[in-house]
Amino acid sequence: MESVRANIHVGVDMSFEAHLKATVLGVEGAVACSLMGFDGIAVETYQPQSTIGSSVDVQGAWIEYSSILSQLKNTAEILRTGDVVEVHVGTEKLSTLIRLVNSEYFIVLGMLPEGNIGKGRYLLRLAAPELKAEL
Amino acid sequence: MESVRANIHVGVDMSFEAHLKATVLGVEGAVACSLMGFDGIAVETYQPQSTIGSSVDVQGAWIEYSSILSQLKNTAEILRTGDVVEVHVGTEKLSTLIRLVNSEYFIVLGMLPEGNIGKGRYLLRLAAPELKAEL
Repeated sequence: MESVRANIHVGVDMSFEAHLKATVLGVEGAVACSLMGFDGIAVETYQPQSTIGSSVDVQGAWIEYSSILSQLKNTAEILRTGDVVEVHVGTEKLSTLIRLVNSEYFIVLGMLPEGNIGKGRYLLRLAAPELKAEL
Repeated sequence: MESVRANIHVGVDMSFEAHLKATVLGVEGAVACSLMGFDGIAVETYQPQSTIGSSVDVQGAWIEYSSILSQLKNTAEILRTGDVVEVHVGTEKLSTLIRLVNSEYFIVLGMLPEGNIGKGRYLLRLAAPELKAEL
């Protein structure tokens, strides 16, 4: 955690990465974390080398999810259910937690299906306002 | 819970309702539970009178979610992430948990945002195979 904290003051990009890295390292079973736009383009991603090249296309899934998330936002507006705050999609091989940062960006955390969802939700809730302040 | 158990042997529809009712009564903050098809049509719904007529259009939201769920299923097939197992959509006024029952139906639980998501996930995990066996 020392190096993560040290990165916070280096620059904007490093700061984003520090938050994403801290989230991945803090959740059992986490494989990757990104700050993404609703257009499906990642601003910054932290994915440990050990999880790259697995059979699951994590980034591909998230690009698709970003489009679905846009639809959920529209649905929420039409149905007066209030803004979308967070979304979880659990598939047999990948568990994905999403938390909205602002109207343009969201933070997304990928975990193994047996990953700690409760801890993930908690850390995304902490990270979102910090990322928002830096955007 | 006595009456819920008594309903189980009355008939197929009553049995569906018994599972839905037991789920709503077992989760703090739950407002409604439905067994729905991916076409957005509810097979059976349990919604306590006290929660009907609130400002949030729970059923309307779920019809929209069923369409989004179909897209998530297609995405999972394309991206080899395995079948979709469960989905959570948290908005400012409504927290919705979805668990797939089979390729045609899913169970959906609506809660207040402060509802107990962990308990909801647990009870849907128990209810899904029972509903599947009766479909």
